[in-house]
Amino acid sequence: MARTERLLEKARALFPELHRETVRPIRTVEPVFRDGRYGAEAAEDFRNRTLSTGDSVVLDFGDHETGYLTIRFSSEGAHPDAPVWIRVRFAERLSEFYENAEEYAGWISKAWIQETQAHLDVLPCEVTFPRRYAFRYVKLEVLDCSTRFSLKVEGAEATAVSSADESALSPCTSADPELVELDRIAVRTLHECMQRVFEDGPKRDRRLWMGDLRLEALVSYETYHADAMVKQGLYLFAGDTDADGQIASNLFIAPQIEADDGRMFDYSLFFTTALRDYYARTGDREALEDLYETAMHQVKLAEELLGPDGVIRDSDVMGWCFVDWNLGLNKQASAQGIYLYALQAAAELAEWKGDPELAASMRKRHADGVRAVREALLDTARGVFVSGAAGQVSWASQCWLVLGGAFASREEAAAALLSLEQDKNAEGMVTPYMYHHYIQALIDAGLEEKAKAVLKEYWGGMAADGADTFFELYRPGHPDESPYGGTIVNSYCHAWSCAPAYFIRHYQW
Amino acid sequence: MARTERLLEKARALFPELHRETVRPIRTVEPVFRDGRYGAEAAEDFRNRTLSTGDSVVLDFGDHETGYLTIRFSSEGAHPDAPVWIRVRFAERLSEFYENAEEYAGWISKAWIQETQAHLDVLPCEVTFPRRYAFRYVKLEVLDCSTRFSLKVEGAEATAVSSADESALSPCTSADPELVELDRIAVRTLHECMQRVFEDGPKRDRRLWMGDLRLEALVSYETYHADAMVKQGLYLFAGDTDADGQIASNLFIAPQIEADDGRMFDYSLFFTTALRDYYARTGDREALEDLYETAMHQVKLAEELLGPDGVIRDSDVMGWCFVDWNLGLNKQASAQGIYLYALQAAAELAEWKGDPELAASMRKRHADGVRAVREALLDTARGVFVSGAAGQVSWASQCWLVLGGAFASREEAAAALLSLEQDKNAEGMVTPYMYHHYIQALIDAGLEEKAKAVLKEYWGGMAADGADTFFELYRPGHPDESPYGGTIVNSYCHAWSCAPAYFIRHYQW
Repeated sequence: MARTERLLEKARALFPELHRETVRPIRTVEPVFRDGRYGAEAAEDFRNRTLSTGDSVVLDFGDHETGYLTIRFSSEGAHPDAPVWIRVRFAERLSEFYENAEEYAGWISKAWIQETQAHLDVLPCEVTFPRRYAFRYVKLEVLDCSTRFSLKVEGAEATAVSSADESALSPCTSADPELVELDRIAVRTLHECMQRVFEDGPKRDRRLWMGDLRLEALVSYETYHADAMVKQGLYLFAGDTDADGQIASNLFIAPQIEADDGRMFDYSLFFTTALRDYYARTGDREALEDLYETAMHQVKLAEELLGPDGVIRDSDVMGWCFVDWNLGLNKQASAQGIYLYALQAAAELAEWKGDPELAASMRKRHADGVRAVREALLDTARGVFVSGAAGQVSWASQCWLVLGGAFASREEAAAALLSLEQDKNAEGMVTPYMYHHYIQALIDAGLEEKAKAVLKEYWGGMAADGADTFFELYRPGHPDESPYGGTIVNSYCHAWSCAPAYFIRHYQW
Repeated sequence: MARTERLLEKARALFPELHRETVRPIRTVEPVFRDGRYGAEAAEDFRNRTLSTGDSVVLDFGDHETGYLTIRFSSEGAHPDAPVWIRVRFAERLSEFYENAEEYAGWISKAWIQETQAHLDVLPCEVTFPRRYAFRYVKLEVLDCSTRFSLKVEGAEATAVSSADESALSPCTSADPELVELDRIAVRTLHECMQRVFEDGPKRDRRLWMGDLRLEALVSYETYHADAMVKQGLYLFAGDTDADGQIASNLFIAPQIEADDGRMFDYSLFFTTALRDYYARTGDREALEDLYETAMHQVKLAEELLGPDGVIRDSDVMGWCFVDWNLGLNKQASAQGIYLYALQAAAELAEWKGDPELAASMRKRHADGVRAVREALLDTARGVFVSGAAGQVSWASQCWLVLGGAFASREEAAAALLSLEQDKNAEGMVTPYMYHHYIQALIDAGLEEKAKAVLKEYWGGMAADGADTFFELYRPGHPDESPYGGTIVNSYCHAWSCAPAYFIRHYQW
């Protein structure tokens, strides 16, 4: 690992303060599953109930919250003659209460499931649970309570935390109420992910990922204007690269700043594009001077993967390039698109830095890359790019090659994107993260109205499903979608899905 | 309830300080169950192990401890990419690890089972578990740990607490190594139960019971000389009686001092006998003056239960009189014995108080009670007292009528006690608490050598079974003995079983 303390020091100085807000449950609910949908009916207020062994109560805090829970307990009946043993489960979505932690056997840790137990030795008492949770609903179950008394919940409150500054939030000026609503949910999603860093999700992984940071930054520029946090993220990544200077895919800030050992082709290049976005927005010369070399270096590292045909070599190493959580997706063509997309950013950075020769070289490489990929991967008969040895056609490949400028014209790009709708075999998209790029590709291909319609349909589908925040994974008609082996560890408030606020505001829908 | 603040104030001033001691595990063990016995084999030191999902490690602290556990964790492998979910189980005896909390379905709360869970969000970390536990062994199980790293336990320590003052402990002067060992275990048992009050057991119920206080006081006079704590206990009970002045069977000190609503015939009368014991030992005039009326009043309340035949009426109300945890035991004859035993104490208290007339009256009532019980319940043919309408013969009845002075002579008493050994139908004893009274009855009947032999056999049986402290329940040949519906909630450090230290020292064995 190559640590640059000078950059990390600057990053440390940019850690934001957390704003704290006290939030109380708005109602007590009884979860119901009916006609394939999870919902909640109003139930007797928790303050009026007495709980015995096996009883439970579900508190609804009214919106997605990230923070710390405090509950005040008392008892009714004889003086408590034994502790009370409780379990507390936290859910972003009611569906989580229908899942059994014991049965989850996926490949990521069960420890992400948000639950805890406590023994109440003395009643009345007030318990503040030490961990931070992401939730709208809290289910309190009595695992055992002596028959001589019953448990009462006198009060509950959450100390919600976020570094988002509500006073800095720009208003949404769209006149379309449907879009205003999607914007509201998207902004809430970003708000919840804004903690000490731009987290990917406050339930899981609670971590700074380069790919998520890039999109959070785009939404932040239109909403909370947390430019210092974007800068913090860029300095963190630049301050702890691997030995050959490659940007990590993600990093940890506790117990100290440390880059994860994972590297992904696309995420490293997004450092370059995110710096382009940041400088274009802020004109922050210090950041450009400090981070320029690192940004340009990512392009150079990417080029080491170019094959003799001038196209990024395919790889069967799991996770070599992320693109989407579709495990069947071949990433080669997308990687080429992302490389081209980064070359465009690198050219801009070189211009700003005052290096027109390098800028020209980047533009030349871009032209070469476009030519190469068209020769190698364009299926001229169908008008789409294929990917990998098996010639896979996918939505991701077309989107990224649109964004990378590999299509000869808007019309050609539009035709490719539209042709996917007729191709049942085209490999699809499973994350709002990939949909973000699809929306952008549609706009770049001159299909802005279609982009708006897709956004309304896709993010609107989550909203119609009761989303308080947008999800990590969403594939209409596939409610069990999870790359982890179980939806109980899915994140239902995930920064990479806050795209609506960017598109609605940036394109003034 | 009748609260007497003046007495409670004095009690509050007598709460002891807790001494704190740092204790570390002496070894890592692997529990084994072989030939019907639970044991432990030395295992690889926990510091040298790495733990993954499903792994566990058992720490042996070397002796029974009551206190708070701190564990320092770290990780090995990649930077932790998920929390670690652990369960920690605390056991006084290794057998507890072979029991399943899920399967316990007894009538007292599962919440007494000593276990907890935690999520470790950041590693390395130090976790101090907030509850007080009673344990020698700690089992740490990894419920889930990401496959990218493993968990390490760097260190563990307990902050053990007790109000017993080791510097005040009188030495055991017995020359019999077997008795010295039983004394050591008994003293440790009392040490562990000495907290802010004389608790019955540090695992369960952690509460001041009048019957336990009486025996703990007897052992304390011979060992730690915690006279102020005995006085505290007496003032607590006298300070919060029920409306007609009856002493509660037990009381709580948190969140504030409050007597439980349970009343037991025998436990109320033990206030009288415990005050007698306390004054005889200390000559504390203030206590005698403050508590005398309450003590004499218990006798008066007991007499309301006398039938026209001058014998305490039988009752089928569960728990009306405790005597022993043998659920098949008829309590009538024992209750009469305890009433007589209390009359003797009341007579002494009246003498000390300077009320010879009342003392004479108590002696007269004692003589009447003896005459009455001999007429009503003595089976002259068999030389034993029967109890209840069905004429049940039990060990408890004989013991208590010996202690109450209902036998005409030592010889008659001795014959009754010895006859039990030939009577397979005689209802037996299940607790060390009842055995305490059996030992005392043997001594009172002139069978001191037999008393010593029984003590060696009974308490020695627990010692041979690896007891670090003596148990709440012990019935040789019945390892599953539990009045609660499951041994997992049994207490294996219970004050009422610390008798050996009293007998060995008081009778200079």
